[in-house]
Amino acid sequence: MATRQDDVIPDFLRMDESIGSDPANANKTGNWHGWPTKDLDPVTLMDDEGRTVRIRTPVMDLEGLITPTDLHYTVQHFAVPPVVPTDQWELKVHGQVKTELTLNFDQLRRFPGRTVRTVMECSGSDATFFEYFKDEGPKPSRTQECMILSASEWTGVPLAAVLHAAGLDDKSLYVRAIGNDEGVPATAAEGTKPFYYDKGLPMQKALHPDTILAYAQNGTLLEHLHGAPVRLLVPGWSGNWSVKWITDLEIMDHMPECWYHYEFYYYGNSVDDPNKELITTLGVKSIVTQPNDDVENMTKGVHMIRGYAWSGAGAISEVDVSTDGGETWHSAHIEAPRHDQFMWVRWSYQWNADKAGKYTIMSRATDDVGRVQSREPRYNNMRKNFSAIVGYPVTVK
Amino acid sequence: MATRQDDVIPDFLRMDESIGSDPANANKTGNWHGWPTKDLDPVTLMDDEGRTVRIRTPVMDLEGLITPTDLHYTVQHFAVPPVVPTDQWELKVHGQVKTELTLNFDQLRRFPGRTVRTVMECSGSDATFFEYFKDEGPKPSRTQECMILSASEWTGVPLAAVLHAAGLDDKSLYVRAIGNDEGVPATAAEGTKPFYYDKGLPMQKALHPDTILAYAQNGTLLEHLHGAPVRLLVPGWSGNWSVKWITDLEIMDHMPECWYHYEFYYYGNSVDDPNKELITTLGVKSIVTQPNDDVENMTKGVHMIRGYAWSGAGAISEVDVSTDGGETWHSAHIEAPRHDQFMWVRWSYQWNADKAGKYTIMSRATDDVGRVQSREPRYNNMRKNFSAIVGYPVTVK
Repeated sequence: MATRQDDVIPDFLRMDESIGSDPANANKTGNWHGWPTKDLDPVTLMDDEGRTVRIRTPVMDLEGLITPTDLHYTVQHFAVPPVVPTDQWELKVHGQVKTELTLNFDQLRRFPGRTVRTVMECSGSDATFFEYFKDEGPKPSRTQECMILSASEWTGVPLAAVLHAAGLDDKSLYVRAIGNDEGVPATAAEGTKPFYYDKGLPMQKALHPDTILAYAQNGTLLEHLHGAPVRLLVPGWSGNWSVKWITDLEIMDHMPECWYHYEFYYYGNSVDDPNKELITTLGVKSIVTQPNDDVENMTKGVHMIRGYAWSGAGAISEVDVSTDGGETWHSAHIEAPRHDQFMWVRWSYQWNADKAGKYTIMSRATDDVGRVQSREPRYNNMRKNFSAIVGYPVTVK
Repeated sequence: MATRQDDVIPDFLRMDESIGSDPANANKTGNWHGWPTKDLDPVTLMDDEGRTVRIRTPVMDLEGLITPTDLHYTVQHFAVPPVVPTDQWELKVHGQVKTELTLNFDQLRRFPGRTVRTVMECSGSDATFFEYFKDEGPKPSRTQECMILSASEWTGVPLAAVLHAAGLDDKSLYVRAIGNDEGVPATAAEGTKPFYYDKGLPMQKALHPDTILAYAQNGTLLEHLHGAPVRLLVPGWSGNWSVKWITDLEIMDHMPECWYHYEFYYYGNSVDDPNKELITTLGVKSIVTQPNDDVENMTKGVHMIRGYAWSGAGAISEVDVSTDGGETWHSAHIEAPRHDQFMWVRWSYQWNADKAGKYTIMSRATDDVGRVQSREPRYNNMRKNFSAIVGYPVTVK
């Protein structure tokens, strides 16, 4: 007679008894729960202790919108800061506010939550293309080098909710966000004292509901490299605005003089340019991921050309593809969903490559505020925010 | 003098030189790229070969919408089938169609792509609550046992696109989806021959644009346990409809007699019930994740009550919380984003527990087609689709 548990739990749901294996699978191994897999490897850099401190994303091999957390890029200017246990973390909100606040992790999480999906791109992403475009450097390989570009789902609370609780007035114009990572930039003037990484976010962007204090990424609490316990997330703006390991929000009546503003993340012609422009919003950009940029030869026949497109200013409204180096363009299919403004979209174009010859594949994105991805990069002495159209030469045989 | 590479690649982007570690981090270790982490562990079951074959999700500890792929539940009735290399996989589309098709992986991927976010729940999820509600079994622990419930982003092509290519007519009424997993159910009649797992999807659901043939999950190609190379994904319907390891689509002019229809996944009073109802759409359901269901005592003060809510029939329009066992209800905050119909939503309610005593925490979901989560489960002899409101007794001291 069956035991009670056998009655209640049907065989296929039992978690407490041994289970057979299909003979065809016997003695095979793999690295995903024991199964063969198509795991992806990021490019990583280790610190002296053997831990990963920088990650670049194998974007060419992603298939979907989310970048898994262990493949999401991370970079920081100073050494990775000490691990702060979640229950010892505090956020101080001070300066030009009606009531200064000190919030621990539980208190922060009392504000209404919000999940935001966004692409994140480092200002330094694709920087070597500036030299390549001027015939001053080799062709970069996004495939081999991976990219400082990823996309995730982030969960936290709107920065606006915290600012509202502290109370703003007409002099509350900037939010200086300070991280727990401290150091001296390699290119800083001699004698520069160590400081904590900081950025001065204008109030309009700080109050955008998708600008959040994030404590989770892709379904689980933040990993240390991604800014745990809490980081700022500023969707649509260059990655350096999303201050990790956040400890302080200083509300100010003027733009703070953060070193990583006009000493590093700016558009200009030289370090002495009197007309430097602060880098904020990401450009409108698309990349081709299939064929990847190491492919030189393709067979005759039907090929799918695929990639991603994104913009910091508006949703992507159009992606066009050229196979003749920009002479003629064809509308690509933009895949659903398209309703997450700051997330990249996937696109595809079916290319009937029925004639042998040399081709140059290109993609061009347009966003819904009318910006069109440009053929020429915006050259700048800091080599930031490359977002031009790249031609991928291939030979069809 | 600096080398050319030093000029071109600023220090913080170099991936080719050793890098220092903050002294505070020295000699600490962890399991996420070497860092301490709050990794989650699923409940798993191994096969004879030591590989994972079943996964249950630690839903109580998730923080976000996506369940990371290695935590996403997986269950199957038969032994996990042989691994089929992607370049050897084929999908046959046959039966009541104008043109029979055989598609390989590349050919399938020529159809316009689509990404869908959806909760997935096994019909057997929470089944032991049926006994608990009748005082015939112990209180289940979703915390300790984990759940047969998860949510992911899936990428593939609409099933409708493939069906359209094959050509339908007015006799094309059902899509019999067949997987590569073969066996004999434990409760099948004696003499039942081994068969491949199959389900007969009505054409209306088959043509829904979010019903897709998925080849990727959460940004990367499918893992074998999740149905690689390609699986069916039927958002909003019980997990058993999302046939893994798919090999065949047989278009039929009548509902096929699949064993896992009226022998297993049905509502009824007995195996001989003449009025069995096939299980399809998920109910409207919410669960409390914080405090988790192992918590018995709480301190006086402010507590956030959190959880998830979902429905197979429409988006969640309302979540209410009770702390007095359902006597009084309070509207919970439903977190953005709310625009993915088949995805669960996060919700929260701030509870000011300022008086000592005994409380019973409950949550109740309503969807936008007017369904309200019920207090009483829908009892059925197969113990499927438990979706009733569960009371969580706690003592505030």
